[in-house]
Amino acid sequence: MVGVIIPVIQNPFFWQMLSGISESLQGAGYSLHLSHYPLDVQQETNTLRQLKRQPVDGFILLAAAKYLPPRLIDYLRKAGRPVVEITAARAEFDHVVHTYASGTRTLMAHLLELGHRRIGFVYGVAREVQGFDRLLVYREMLQEAGSGGNESYEAHCGERLEDAYQAAHALLSCPERPTALLVINDMLAIAVLRAAHDLGLMVPRDLSVASFDDIPFSSYTSPRLTTVSGKAEESGRMAVELLLKRLAEPDLPQQVTTADVQLIVRESTGPAPL
Amino acid sequence: MVGVIIPVIQNPFFWQMLSGISESLQGAGYSLHLSHYPLDVQQETNTLRQLKRQPVDGFILLAAAKYLPPRLIDYLRKAGRPVVEITAARAEFDHVVHTYASGTRTLMAHLLELGHRRIGFVYGVAREVQGFDRLLVYREMLQEAGSGGNESYEAHCGERLEDAYQAAHALLSCPERPTALLVINDMLAIAVLRAAHDLGLMVPRDLSVASFDDIPFSSYTSPRLTTVSGKAEESGRMAVELLLKRLAEPDLPQQVTTADVQLIVRESTGPAPL
Repeated sequence: MVGVIIPVIQNPFFWQMLSGISESLQGAGYSLHLSHYPLDVQQETNTLRQLKRQPVDGFILLAAAKYLPPRLIDYLRKAGRPVVEITAARAEFDHVVHTYASGTRTLMAHLLELGHRRIGFVYGVAREVQGFDRLLVYREMLQEAGSGGNESYEAHCGERLEDAYQAAHALLSCPERPTALLVINDMLAIAVLRAAHDLGLMVPRDLSVASFDDIPFSSYTSPRLTTVSGKAEESGRMAVELLLKRLAEPDLPQQVTTADVQLIVRESTGPAPL
Repeated sequence: MVGVIIPVIQNPFFWQMLSGISESLQGAGYSLHLSHYPLDVQQETNTLRQLKRQPVDGFILLAAAKYLPPRLIDYLRKAGRPVVEITAARAEFDHVVHTYASGTRTLMAHLLELGHRRIGFVYGVAREVQGFDRLLVYREMLQEAGSGGNESYEAHCGERLEDAYQAAHALLSCPERPTALLVINDMLAIAVLRAAHDLGLMVPRDLSVASFDDIPFSSYTSPRLTTVSGKAEESGRMAVELLLKRLAEPDLPQQVTTADVQLIVRESTGPAPL
């Protein structure tokens, strides 16, 4: 049995990962024990108690271990079982790494090339650190293009659709509104499209919108979303592969697999309005 | 540990249920063992093997037991552990029942009242029986309204977004096209909205669209979806409640909790075009 620890339960992106993991585990004859990423101390205690009671062969974390509560990560370190992280940066255990930083670079280059300079970021995350890889590249590239330092174009908000809707609505209502918006994930981009619609803005004529993950919906919205693919199911399968290898050969050096993300240009980005 | 058996892994509706279940179980100190609904014989064997190896206290099925493969349901009957089904009809074990039939009745009444007579149904399911409760009421009410018997308005298709897109595109391209479409779930309704868009049809001016589940996205599409709410998270929590009661008192008579679904009229339905 493999313990899977999942951070956010509403984003289809994580379900896709879980789907990849679940299928691969089933194929390999392992079953799946699912734990929520604990959000408060009581839950943390419960999660730990549950994990300790189960005969788990290994763990897959659907986020970097460093974001886990300290007691939980401490438990994983001492448990003596293989751990695989799916993450966006270098990590402690075996891991599948999404190259989101380079994906953000490609995406920002795409927007700058289209003439956008007032580029906003709807940064809707449960914890401030979760998309830092993307936020830092965004700031850096704006700086390089001579448009940096305007933090009023960063909307730090919660992880729910309504949070993103409100944040985008506020950003787009200011006098010098952004001509393009990055959104931390496709799920929230759907709410951002709606906010633009409610303000009478046409996407991409008046506003470009681009996001991350390439969830299935993003090919069916109007307009279809330009997005940086996260290869969710594939990363899930790759994580299981690393775990199986580690179970077979416990003394392997640290394993790192790169899940190359890529920019998919669809209909939601276009030339900056004059 | 509670074993949760889930049929379809892509629909946000099931994730919401799972989210409700997971939170309630965590609160009660139980952990969650997740199994895919097996789709082929090999998977069925694997699932059974996994379930037998685990010290599971009880089961929650995210669909009626009668849709499970015979060997799996046979195993559940003999396992001597409590089973709770989340279902749309009377069931064998303790269950939470969604009143989808009555929800469909209310929805059809809404469309008929708006003057629609050519009402289609995008019936995208993995197995033909999965939405029968809704399909039968749809047929019955069309019959009563004197518009029945036109099975060419039923598009039986697969469960993926692209299946629904193609099915809706075909239905809406026929000469006497429907003026309203029922869609088996909100997820597929997003693809149906896109098909209408690609054919130059305005929703709801030229076409009404209504679906089932009330997933979070359905309040943020343009137009917002008229839908029959499935109360997914709540049903998940109710299923855990039934399981906990059964574990405390094994000799209780069969427990049945009704999850009343209700019609939520938003922007995607309007008067039939003349």
